[in-house]
Amino acid sequence: MAEALHAVSPGGGGVLHPLILDPLLTAALQEDWAWGDLTTQTVVPTGSKARAEFLYKAPGVVAGLPIVQRLWHLIDPTLVFTAHAAEGATVANRTVAATVEGDARAILSGERVALNLMQRLSATATLAAAYVQAVTGTRAEILDTRKTTPGLRLLEKYAVRVGGARNHRFGLADAIMIKDNHIEIAGSITEAVRRARQGAAATTTVEVETESLEMVEEALAAGADIIMLDNMDPGTMRRAVSLVAGRARLEASGGVTLQTVRAIAETGVDFISVGALTHSAGSLDISLDMKPL
Amino acid sequence: MAEALHAVSPGGGGVLHPLILDPLLTAALQEDWAWGDLTTQTVVPTGSKARAEFLYKAPGVVAGLPIVQRLWHLIDPTLVFTAHAAEGATVANRTVAATVEGDARAILSGERVALNLMQRLSATATLAAAYVQAVTGTRAEILDTRKTTPGLRLLEKYAVRVGGARNHRFGLADAIMIKDNHIEIAGSITEAVRRARQGAAATTTVEVETESLEMVEEALAAGADIIMLDNMDPGTMRRAVSLVAGRARLEASGGVTLQTVRAIAETGVDFISVGALTHSAGSLDISLDMKPL
Amino acid sequence: MAEALHAVSPGGGGVLHPLILDPLLTAALQEDWAWGDLTTQTVVPTGSKARAEFLYKAPGVVAGLPIVQRLWHLIDPTLVFTAHAAEGATVANRTVAATVEGDARAILSGERVALNLMQRLSATATLAAAYVQAVTGTRAEILDTRKTTPGLRLLEKYAVRVGGARNHRFGLADAIMIKDNHIEIAGSITEAVRRARQGAAATTTVEVETESLEMVEEALAAGADIIMLDNMDPGTMRRAVSLVAGRARLEASGGVTLQTVRAIAETGVDFISVGALTHSAGSLDISLDMKPL
Amino acid sequence: MAEALHAVSPGGGGVLHPLILDPLLTAALQEDWAWGDLTTQTVVPTGSKARAEFLYKAPGVVAGLPIVQRLWHLIDPTLVFTAHAAEGATVANRTVAATVEGDARAILSGERVALNLMQRLSATATLAAAYVQAVTGTRAEILDTRKTTPGLRLLEKYAVRVGGARNHRFGLADAIMIKDNHIEIAGSITEAVRRARQGAAATTTVEVETESLEMVEEALAAGADIIMLDNMDPGTMRRAVSLVAGRARLEASGGVTLQTVRAIAETGVDFISVGALTHSAGSLDISLDMKPL
Amino acid sequence: MAEALHAVSPGGGGVLHPLILDPLLTAALQEDWAWGDLTTQTVVPTGSKARAEFLYKAPGVVAGLPIVQRLWHLIDPTLVFTAHAAEGATVANRTVAATVEGDARAILSGERVALNLMQRLSATATLAAAYVQAVTGTRAEILDTRKTTPGLRLLEKYAVRVGGARNHRFGLADAIMIKDNHIEIAGSITEAVRRARQGAAATTTVEVETESLEMVEEALAAGADIIMLDNMDPGTMRRAVSLVAGRARLEASGGVTLQTVRAIAETGVDFISVGALTHSAGSLDISLDMKPL
Amino acid sequence: MAEALHAVSPGGGGVLHPLILDPLLTAALQEDWAWGDLTTQTVVPTGSKARAEFLYKAPGVVAGLPIVQRLWHLIDPTLVFTAHAAEGATVANRTVAATVEGDARAILSGERVALNLMQRLSATATLAAAYVQAVTGTRAEILDTRKTTPGLRLLEKYAVRVGGARNHRFGLADAIMIKDNHIEIAGSITEAVRRARQGAAATTTVEVETESLEMVEEALAAGADIIMLDNMDPGTMRRAVSLVAGRARLEASGGVTLQTVRAIAETGVDFISVGALTHSAGSLDISLDMKPL
Repeated sequence: MAEALHAVSPGGGGVLHPLILDPLLTAALQEDWAWGDLTTQTVVPTGSKARAEFLYKAPGVVAGLPIVQRLWHLIDPTLVFTAHAAEGATVANRTVAATVEGDARAILSGERVALNLMQRLSATATLAAAYVQAVTGTRAEILDTRKTTPGLRLLEKYAVRVGGARNHRFGLADAIMIKDNHIEIAGSITEAVRRARQGAAATTTVEVETESLEMVEEALAAGADIIMLDNMDPGTMRRAVSLVAGRARLEASGGVTLQTVRAIAETGVDFISVGALTHSAGSLDISLDMKPL
Repeated sequence: MAEALHAVSPGGGGVLHPLILDPLLTAALQEDWAWGDLTTQTVVPTGSKARAEFLYKAPGVVAGLPIVQRLWHLIDPTLVFTAHAAEGATVANRTVAATVEGDARAILSGERVALNLMQRLSATATLAAAYVQAVTGTRAEILDTRKTTPGLRLLEKYAVRVGGARNHRFGLADAIMIKDNHIEIAGSITEAVRRARQGAAATTTVEVETESLEMVEEALAAGADIIMLDNMDPGTMRRAVSLVAGRARLEASGGVTLQTVRAIAETGVDFISVGALTHSAGSLDISLDMKPL
Repeated sequence: MAEALHAVSPGGGGVLHPLILDPLLTAALQEDWAWGDLTTQTVVPTGSKARAEFLYKAPGVVAGLPIVQRLWHLIDPTLVFTAHAAEGATVANRTVAATVEGDARAILSGERVALNLMQRLSATATLAAAYVQAVTGTRAEILDTRKTTPGLRLLEKYAVRVGGARNHRFGLADAIMIKDNHIEIAGSITEAVRRARQGAAATTTVEVETESLEMVEEALAAGADIIMLDNMDPGTMRRAVSLVAGRARLEASGGVTLQTVRAIAETGVDFISVGALTHSAGSLDISLDMKPL
Repeated sequence: MAEALHAVSPGGGGVLHPLILDPLLTAALQEDWAWGDLTTQTVVPTGSKARAEFLYKAPGVVAGLPIVQRLWHLIDPTLVFTAHAAEGATVANRTVAATVEGDARAILSGERVALNLMQRLSATATLAAAYVQAVTGTRAEILDTRKTTPGLRLLEKYAVRVGGARNHRFGLADAIMIKDNHIEIAGSITEAVRRARQGAAATTTVEVETESLEMVEEALAAGADIIMLDNMDPGTMRRAVSLVAGRARLEASGGVTLQTVRAIAETGVDFISVGALTHSAGSLDISLDMKPL
Repeated sequence: MAEALHAVSPGGGGVLHPLILDPLLTAALQEDWAWGDLTTQTVVPTGSKARAEFLYKAPGVVAGLPIVQRLWHLIDPTLVFTAHAAEGATVANRTVAATVEGDARAILSGERVALNLMQRLSATATLAAAYVQAVTGTRAEILDTRKTTPGLRLLEKYAVRVGGARNHRFGLADAIMIKDNHIEIAGSITEAVRRARQGAAATTTVEVETESLEMVEEALAAGADIIMLDNMDPGTMRRAVSLVAGRARLEASGGVTLQTVRAIAETGVDFISVGALTHSAGSLDISLDMKPL
Repeated sequence: MAEALHAVSPGGGGVLHPLILDPLLTAALQEDWAWGDLTTQTVVPTGSKARAEFLYKAPGVVAGLPIVQRLWHLIDPTLVFTAHAAEGATVANRTVAATVEGDARAILSGERVALNLMQRLSATATLAAAYVQAVTGTRAEILDTRKTTPGLRLLEKYAVRVGGARNHRFGLADAIMIKDNHIEIAGSITEAVRRARQGAAATTTVEVETESLEMVEEALAAGADIIMLDNMDPGTMRRAVSLVAGRARLEASGGVTLQTVRAIAETGVDFISVGALTHSAGSLDISLDMKPL
């Protein structure tokens, strides 16, 4: 188990450590259990054994295996969890991605939470992979955003990495993002960047959101590390790429879809951020097929 | 504020009390803030004032207003939050559902979490309302399931009520649901129900999942309070309705869509449960438009 | 250990899972230890071994063994705990119900909390069993109430099950109980039940508290699942049983004692709820006799 | 409110500060509410007002008023709580000790937890007062023990003070108590006391449990601050009092009842510890009579 | 209060928000109080009033005022706290930096924790200011490190900002720092940076620790954002500055003292990190002089 | 591991139990990790092995070994930790006090927190040992104070014991300390002690702070257990020792340094309390030298 939890995911970042993951998983189980799984406790005798399979009922990217492995480990450390697909693998419909075997009560009591996690994370990874695929061969990298489900950001950002995309900042503390309201209050991009540089940590990246080439120029001059091109058309983006000429990284953002992403990528931007990865991935159809032993 | 939090939602159940809600909201903010909103703290001077509007950029059902009101109250109790639409109201595109006014830093630091909540809850309520609308005039009530986002079950089930649908059980402890695996392990529906009745609380409702009319008959004879008709075609459901004749409540379940729900409702079942309400509602397009004052 | 914690108790409901139980036990130990067991740490050398016996100094029903087993497991997983009586067994005075053997410091540091738990839970189970015994042969089942010790409800309700009685609802969320004040505010039983049905989950049982046969009739007509007969004399209860004729379940409540419970049971009610099970069971005399090895 | 919480109780120790009390009260409410008070939320309209009275249905000592005042403050800070009896006062049957007025939903949702607390704490204070009364005129002070309900030690020890008795140590960390097992493992009282003195804090009181006058002599010579006379008969206690002659304080312990306590007190011991104060006080009959306004 | 907590500190970053700060302060008080301030509760009557002054008994930089203001607010929101010096001001010996007035019990119960915080934070800010002063006129900025006291990192890094220095990364998640062990395991700086870039977020700054000019060159070629010059002599640092020529930022680190820091700054490095700021600042002599009113 | 954690430290008190220690260590790791150790996770492959040595780069007293052993155990229970010096041993510069071997990622992710703990605790133990050494041959014992780092009191007081000194009270609840403000409010030492005795537990030690021999006399007459001689010169202390003549214990306090402590000890006081032990011990120079295997 410890090994699985230290595995490097396809996206490069590691799986969350139990000290970070366990509170999330424990809370998820306590939410579902309250004072216990009454059906299982009353109907299923102690000592019953079962074997259950995670069956993908739609093609997609597998994400969440080490997480549900840990989930069941917390319920009953004697359960045997076996992955049949790699985390991050693209699987066909009807693929059995993993099995779990052992105490039937322990498997049943974790079933719903495990599926709720796997279905959301696999859907997110699958959508991320689709965007990554769509920009193959360009220099653009697909990024997520902060438009995550409250409480699940770490897991959803993990799924984005599993899908082959890359994370944007994790939250408000680990990077500066100067938006229109900040600029309006500060008076100018130049002043906003100056204040940010002065107050932030030496390691903090400063990004500025821009809506025109004039703003791009000002942001560049002010020393922004990353310049976001907000809702610009591809032509304007292309001009921004020329204008900046590698002196800052460029992030395209705003209403990106699978239909529009390639054209955006071909403008030469470094990053394309896609809110839908985490707010509209939905749920991949996965079932847990169980057989008493 | 206290008043808003005691308000009865359209679906009948009340909004969550601060003692239950605050830990969720605090955790959501801490997830986003980590050690602070660096951009706002460095760029926006103390004492800046602003006014922000929740703008619906798609038609839908408003859900989450008392929750984001509470969210900002936790950040800064001097903020003034004003609802312009009722919780549960159906609003047109371009509707301003609420405004928040006061300290600009406080508004900015809560913006993303507030939107993340409003967008998900409004999408859930909107989808629930669509299902409710689709079965108007039938006896069937739309129910949610346990296919909720880990950590957000209480909020998502609240949004379902706001949308006019009704909740199924909250978790594994407050109702018995005997499924195929339980039946297989117990040996029969009859034995499974017997065990459940013996061990559960006197107030616990017992539901049995069935896949055939024979199973419906056995569940009825065993004394089930609710019988779930799992993935049956409308014709079979209709026969189940006749067979049971009001001696138990009937719940249709399995792959229900907006296209199929009316035909199911017209079979005469009491409940139709729809996992999509909470696992695939996505995110309604809502923005927070802010103006420094 | 995992096995013990999945065991079905005599009352049918399982023992609490470690994910639910451990926070309670850890808090109990932290309450007693604060920053440590100074006496043991200063006086007892590392490596000292001991063996301790749980001795019942009064006849009663054994309750709490898997709980104190888990308690010591949390202190030192190398301790060997051996049950000599079954959870739920009725034992004579001077019975050794269990032994624990191993590190003397670990045993000593858990002694008081273990006894505080065993003494209360065994007393509750013993009292529950006495009530159950008193109604043998009738259809009535003995129920507990919400008159539990704050913080210990799950454990006390577990002990009630161990004693052979049955649980009423766990709290305010898992069943509706309409009392006099609710009725007065709603205007009538009929209206109160209507509101409750509309707002509660589809699986929620609705109970109405009544003080007269007229109220019983109204509750029945309103569709109550359970009707509580509050402080009625046996004659009235008997009439209520006839009147309802199995169309709802009936719960007798109010000032029930071991002296009066049989007569109440013989009226034909389904349930008799007894607050004393959890608020006045006291403490069974149990000691932990320890010998250094 | 702040004032009430700083009030000195009759026993001299103050009421617990909100920073210590609130986690206990919040946990108690969350235990009872889970996801909410369904009955009140569905049946009682927002804005309903009510007035409720704490009615003592048995004579006793009032304990818990500032605690339930705080409890309702946490639920709804606009509730008006008025004490009609002083904390620690002895009241007659049918006394209204306090009233709470305001939002009906807030009062109802806190009712059961408030009563569960008041009934237990008042019973404890009443029993403590009976013991104190029984030894009036002697030098003996009545002490509690660590035989408290897990999770409620601070509140139960508070109730003991309210009843006029005095606290023994709060737990394993704030005083040394050398018992038979410690002595056996250390080899002698002398060695055990030596080790304790060496390792404990300079402010830590050292008590030794003795079962004979020889042990009393050794404990005295070893420098014990307090010597416990465990299950000695009054004659032996009297000899211990003579022997020690004020050079250490003496605590009588073991099976003390209201019948035996006076004789024990008259032996001249300083303290008499009574486990029953916290493990067998039961529940005083108090009701909350509520009227909608 | 809310205002004070949003104030921008001299170093540019804001004070921590109560949602982040309160758990730290509450834990600090619970650590000191356990079950209460016995001395104050027994000796000081309810209603006693007092006034207390924070007296600096050594010259230094004031740090911690809004934090102890919040601390006392948590104890008693009616206390009146008045700052007489600005956070970040350099004050002379015998300066009264702030007063707090109101309930004597509340002031006394917070005294020790308030002093423990002020003394440490003011010492840290004072030391930071001394380093900043020592490099005046150079381009070098003084940075802190992760050598902070476990549990107090946010407060200590806040104090560093108050003293006019700047923060390095907050922890292991918000910037990449490739050290010798990472390089050895990865095989080369080039490979380590490549892996880091691939797996980290798009906003993550990558820093490489180097011990020679060859390593500096490789780090530069690999695309490091910041290059740490670890324990290099000023001559080598100067050559590194020339070599890098602004293409990456340079951080000097290792055994920096107030004696050596100026020479290092004059080499032209961008940053000088000083572990002593947080691990060896000690405690500034501040007292709380209190007068009953 | 369990064994190490039950070991008796040189000062006599045991190491903190995991149930007390783990929350502190987990919080320390979460503070440093936030959402993970990005550098290690991206750069170091799963399965890499390493060996690391704790190297003392200054002479001092070893303190913290069982604590960092437990820290790494929480990160990865398969790591092998080997102590090469005893906790509490005085070691020379260049001593390797312990090694840890196993998964390189686990070692790296715990490195900084482990060092932050070891360096502070060893510095505290070293300073404590210096004070103890300075008073060798006198009757005086060196005590710590409540001037500890918020959040680390238990660990710092543990380090004081490891260094051979003794703890004063742990906090405001486990001993009474009557200071000038308490006396002024109570009216006199006599009255303050009377109130304290009445309200505190029977086991609570009462200490009085005095500034003159008159106060010493009053405190003695009032029955104080310990009398603190606050900032008295050695001559006055000597007179206090004569005056009290063993009827209470005497504690010297106030501005004690390594230069003045011996003279104070020679006055015959029982205790000398030194705030510097915990507020100004700084950080001992210890490194973790790691080699990939």
